[in-house]
Amino acid sequence: MNDFPKVIHLHEEGPREGIQIEKAQLSVAQKVELIDSLAAAGLKQIDCVSFVNPKRVPNMADADDVARAIRKRDGVRYTGLWLNQQGLQRALDLPLDIMGSLRVTASETFSIKNTNKSIAETFDEQRKWMDTYRDHGVALEWGYIMTAFGCTYEGHVPMARVMDMAARIIELAEDYDQSLKGIYLADTVGFATPRDIEERVGALRDRWPDLKVGLHLHDTRGTGMPNVYAALRMGVDQFDSSTAGLGGCPFADHKGAAGNVCTEDIVFMCEEMGISTGVDLDALIETARMAEDMFGHPLPGKVMHAGSLSRFKV
Amino acid sequence: MNDFPKVIHLHEEGPREGIQIEKAQLSVAQKVELIDSLAAAGLKQIDCVSFVNPKRVPNMADADDVARAIRKRDGVRYTGLWLNQQGLQRALDLPLDIMGSLRVTASETFSIKNTNKSIAETFDEQRKWMDTYRDHGVALEWGYIMTAFGCTYEGHVPMARVMDMAARIIELAEDYDQSLKGIYLADTVGFATPRDIEERVGALRDRWPDLKVGLHLHDTRGTGMPNVYAALRMGVDQFDSSTAGLGGCPFADHKGAAGNVCTEDIVFMCEEMGISTGVDLDALIETARMAEDMFGHPLPGKVMHAGSLSRFKV
Repeated sequence: MNDFPKVIHLHEEGPREGIQIEKAQLSVAQKVELIDSLAAAGLKQIDCVSFVNPKRVPNMADADDVARAIRKRDGVRYTGLWLNQQGLQRALDLPLDIMGSLRVTASETFSIKNTNKSIAETFDEQRKWMDTYRDHGVALEWGYIMTAFGCTYEGHVPMARVMDMAARIIELAEDYDQSLKGIYLADTVGFATPRDIEERVGALRDRWPDLKVGLHLHDTRGTGMPNVYAALRMGVDQFDSSTAGLGGCPFADHKGAAGNVCTEDIVFMCEEMGISTGVDLDALIETARMAEDMFGHPLPGKVMHAGSLSRFKV
Repeated sequence: MNDFPKVIHLHEEGPREGIQIEKAQLSVAQKVELIDSLAAAGLKQIDCVSFVNPKRVPNMADADDVARAIRKRDGVRYTGLWLNQQGLQRALDLPLDIMGSLRVTASETFSIKNTNKSIAETFDEQRKWMDTYRDHGVALEWGYIMTAFGCTYEGHVPMARVMDMAARIIELAEDYDQSLKGIYLADTVGFATPRDIEERVGALRDRWPDLKVGLHLHDTRGTGMPNVYAALRMGVDQFDSSTAGLGGCPFADHKGAAGNVCTEDIVFMCEEMGISTGVDLDALIETARMAEDMFGHPLPGKVMHAGSLSRFKV
């Protein structure tokens, strides 16, 4: 049996996580063009920039300029990512759509490598974020658990630790009289199989039936799309994805680090199965091809190279 | 609910279908080395050559030499592919493991482009194959239905036509007092979604519960691995696959034609989910990397670039 959603929601990560790992330096104008092309194709939530150390991620040095230059379309949320309080303050000063979030990492080692903070220090930091959200009237939305399946430093992450992290961020939200819309499980370095997805999504749902579950998946070892499919079967309707399969995590410490699951490929699979994405697939394929031209090397998306099947629709 | 198999059987297509589409000409010695490396990694059935027109597929001009040069290992079947009676006769004269098969194409146009025969002419030809199998004591095993989901000339192929093709090959086998082990559905040009897999595998099983179902999938539009997963959930335990994701169909008439689903990626997903493949994943990754070196360009396999997770196993 299955419980496919009728509609899914995609948070496009290409301009943020996708660009982070690329060697090619795009201009501000190119980044804005990519973002606008994604919005024109129908994506309603686009992660545009991250506020990280430009020494570690040179491609995000111009994040403020990009955020200011975006040509906004109605009904589209233009988000940014921060990993610490300084980043959050930068984001608040810019014309971005601030999505109140909590972000913790299930692997202690990965947490330190990625954010320079232990898990305990991360939870202290999250309280500052909650204070800031309250002060700025930002609604809390999603809690993210990074490396929720495994990490290249510590190996497989036990489910009990993921459940504990979820419980702690839910509790933190409650301390502030806020409630999370849902929990995002991030397979940051591509450890998850479809069975893991079923197990962990199922466990979260059993314990917190009112919370939604989102997935941030990387196609590092070929399980990205089957993981999406396994989640769709369970009714999961919220995914991060990256046009053309752009991206990868610059701190994952292995050269095979792959990008997020590819937006067009998800759109193709969903639309062909009758699940609505709100995206014009042929327009998005053109965007992905534009991205490939911008970066100057082949990108891993599949349907962008093979083409859609729209010419066969009556 | 699911009905995962405990063990799956892979028919490795890299040396045959994989090499067919590649521009690089491997030497006979290289082809033999690739085949032997696949066998050493634990693959028990390897498609080694095809007997096709060397003007159309120059990489198979040396098929006879390759077949004679293979260093055979115990317990491994070294198969070849023919599309017509002349090809079958060539195969029978060589030291190959002849797998009795019937091969029909659900799309009339694709049948003509791929084999120079209409569907009606193909069925006439299949009778010659059955006569030849009988004369040579070759046991009939699988019936293959190519373009069982769609084709780039005719678009989506209706399920009724696939069921009709299956009924006709089953009937043909019965005419010769033979029974098929099962039916292979081939998604020759990457039209299938997981829902199509569930629908068509389910329909075959409902009508012919004693027949096995095999799948020959191409990852043209990103649905290859989710299609494998959907089939695994239904207990399908027989797949064609291609190391490193090598290959593609040279007659599919579009440049995005992609290879078979990648053997290592299937092995990784299955073994991580507790489904046995009999393959040593790390050895196969080395084989895939060797293939990449032989062809001299990046190949689409994922786990061959990211590495396995074996270092994290206790």
